Amino acid sequence: MVYLDWAATAAPYPEIAAEAASLSCRIFGNPSSMHSAGKEAKIMLETSREKLAGCIGADKGQIIFTSGGSEADKLVMQSTLRGKSRKTVIISAIEHDAIDREAKTLEDFGFAIERIKPKKSGIIDAGELADRLSKDTALVSVMAVNNETGAIQPVQDILKIIHAFEQENGRAPFFHCDAVQAHGSIGLRLSSLGMDSAAFSAHKLGGPKGIGALYVKKRIEPLTSGGQEGGMRAGTENPAAAWAFAEVMKKNTDNADLLDKQAKLLESRLLEGIKSIIGAVVIPENRSAGDPRYCPNIICLSFPGLGSETLVRLLDESGIAVSAGAACSSAKKERRVLDAMGTDRVLSFSAIRLSTGWNSSIEDIDKFLETAASIYKRYKV
Amino acid sequence: MVYLDWAATAAPYPEIAAEAASLSCRIFGNPSSMHSAGKEAKIMLETSREKLAGCIGADKGQIIFTSGGSEADKLVMQSTLRGKSRKTVIISAIEHDAIDREAKTLEDFGFAIERIKPKKSGIIDAGELADRLSKDTALVSVMAVNNETGAIQPVQDILKIIHAFEQENGRAPFFHCDAVQAHGSIGLRLSSLGMDSAAFSAHKLGGPKGIGALYVKKRIEPLTSGGQEGGMRAGTENPAAAWAFAEVMKKNTDNADLLDKQAKLLESRLLEGIKSIIGAVVIPENRSAGDPRYCPNIICLSFPGLGSETLVRLLDESGIAVSAGAACSSAKKERRVLDAMGTDRVLSFSAIRLSTGWNSSIEDIDKFLETAASIYKRYKV
Repeated sequence: MVYLDWAATAAPYPEIAAEAASLSCRIFGNPSSMHSAGKEAKIMLETSREKLAGCIGADKGQIIFTSGGSEADKLVMQSTLRGKSRKTVIISAIEHDAIDREAKTLEDFGFAIERIKPKKSGIIDAGELADRLSKDTALVSVMAVNNETGAIQPVQDILKIIHAFEQENGRAPFFHCDAVQAHGSIGLRLSSLGMDSAAFSAHKLGGPKGIGALYVKKRIEPLTSGGQEGGMRAGTENPAAAWAFAEVMKKNTDNADLLDKQAKLLESRLLEGIKSIIGAVVIPENRSAGDPRYCPNIICLSFPGLGSETLVRLLDESGIAVSAGAACSSAKKERRVLDAMGTDRVLSFSAIRLSTGWNSSIEDIDKFLETAASIYKRYKV
Repeated sequence: MVYLDWAATAAPYPEIAAEAASLSCRIFGNPSSMHSAGKEAKIMLETSREKLAGCIGADKGQIIFTSGGSEADKLVMQSTLRGKSRKTVIISAIEHDAIDREAKTLEDFGFAIERIKPKKSGIIDAGELADRLSKDTALVSVMAVNNETGAIQPVQDILKIIHAFEQENGRAPFFHCDAVQAHGSIGLRLSSLGMDSAAFSAHKLGGPKGIGALYVKKRIEPLTSGGQEGGMRAGTENPAAAWAFAEVMKKNTDNADLLDKQAKLLESRLLEGIKSIIGAVVIPENRSAGDPRYCPNIICLSFPGLGSETLVRLLDESGIAVSAGAACSSAKKERRVLDAMGTDRVLSFSAIRLSTGWNSSIEDIDKFLETAASIYKRYKV
């Protein structure tokens, strides 16, 4: 199988998965238990927390392990329900479902939600946030890297704007960043930025499913306190999964340059190759290989005249896995992200996402290009 | 190590952990993806759901996989926030922290929480619920088996009372049951009872940490909808962990009689043995071996004149793992459950919990009895 859907979930590093399983049996105690079996598990959990924190330039006390990226997002969004006075939440119109749905929940509870649309590039204009910020803004949430287009959002500019607002008004909204798709070097750049919180997921990086992390600069008040993770959540921690998460984060951090170089090579091969398939385009159309505005791991392509679902299925029959939009919203027909970008419907109807990861190869890209060209030629209407 | 703290977390079945790790690498797709890698993962997830459902007598459509028992409890409790009119919640005073804390959250949002105290036996009186039910009762939550004493709660009687209330008033409160500690045959008896929802956890049964399940008789409206689990939660599912969960549930169901017999044998050995340690008692004091009101896997003992924390530490130094109350609340000094039962402070101050599981042996119990006797003799004040 040629797997080009790493943004949906990454292939796990097998040696890390095997070692985590072995650890889960050897060090199986409940980290909250007072006895040695518990303490051993607690040590593994805390060592993993420290290692993970180190990779993103955080202190271990700022890392809360969660069941995944979505829970990390949810934890922050729902904490807003505790807010007493400010009732506006600003998010980008291209946030992951995890954020977008929580925003709808906040709406049900009386919050006003404002969504900032991106430019045609898929990138939001930080200036628009500056115009919208008010003393009523409780929370701003903008993702680091869009999961459908790879567009890197202007997190640094947003932070400057929020900082300036704070200087002027004495208080600032909380700023959360969903960094689940911030691969390789993108991820590393997040560390020193100073956002209030950020969400991470292990399985997007080659780690296990079922574990993520929330970085919080300073303690927040969750909707419900819990007996674990410094009172931030309830549920027995999973030390072996935390170990695996920290291990893949470290591996990806250590190899960031290499992984980035490889991703750029594949991006370049793909974007060059696509030019020879007449009619096929990249979304947005002016994205070129090496464009620093995009994460090289995620590329959106369109084959006008051939519906994306049909294309995904035909590619699948040839042993190639790609996606039509985000996996999480695959059941829905809408293309929320592309629509928000103002992408022509002809293009968005035929848009697919390719995403690469740690064991993607030039051969994968070539196989895709060859197969897509032949399918497109045959089935295009 | 002699591990007698299975109610905190069970030793995983190693062969299931190893196979789950292998599966997580071979079938690693995102179950929401449309391609074969996704479909394969979806099939593993759904097959596991069906197997798990079968073990508790449910339909697969009634099972929602969660990150654990606590999340399953939370999902139900928080759905109550969506309620428009009824504003009272009745829980037992001996619920697990996961329920008790959510109740506090509901209180913050304007709900009145009533807590039913158990009798000295550790069992609540269903009649008291009958007296308290009103048209304002939105939710009733009572656990199946208490995690500190093993006391089996009168779930069947509660259901009758709720049913009678419904007959009389046309509508009934929602009834949730935290069945996380419902081991072996206790677990099986839950299936046909007809509660509205029940929470389960894999790691208490020898499965992986980080996965649980919520049984819902009929669809409920969660606080936040999500793209997974039929819209009930957000977050990429973990098919390999679901497989392991279903596998341990099946194993425990198939071996229920054997496991139950073994647990009763160990309970008997322990309760007989404790009689020869002068001063030591079981809590409640009239619990005897084979008493059907208690889950044989969980036994609360007291060694008056020796603080429980000291005893736990001294036993640990001799290689025996037991707990002073629930692991989840081990950082707190209070003994919420025992206090609610009206246990004498002299006893509760010195109370420890022993819990057994699939590989506990007579030798474990004998080692405990021998060591506890010697420690008690030496350190009792």
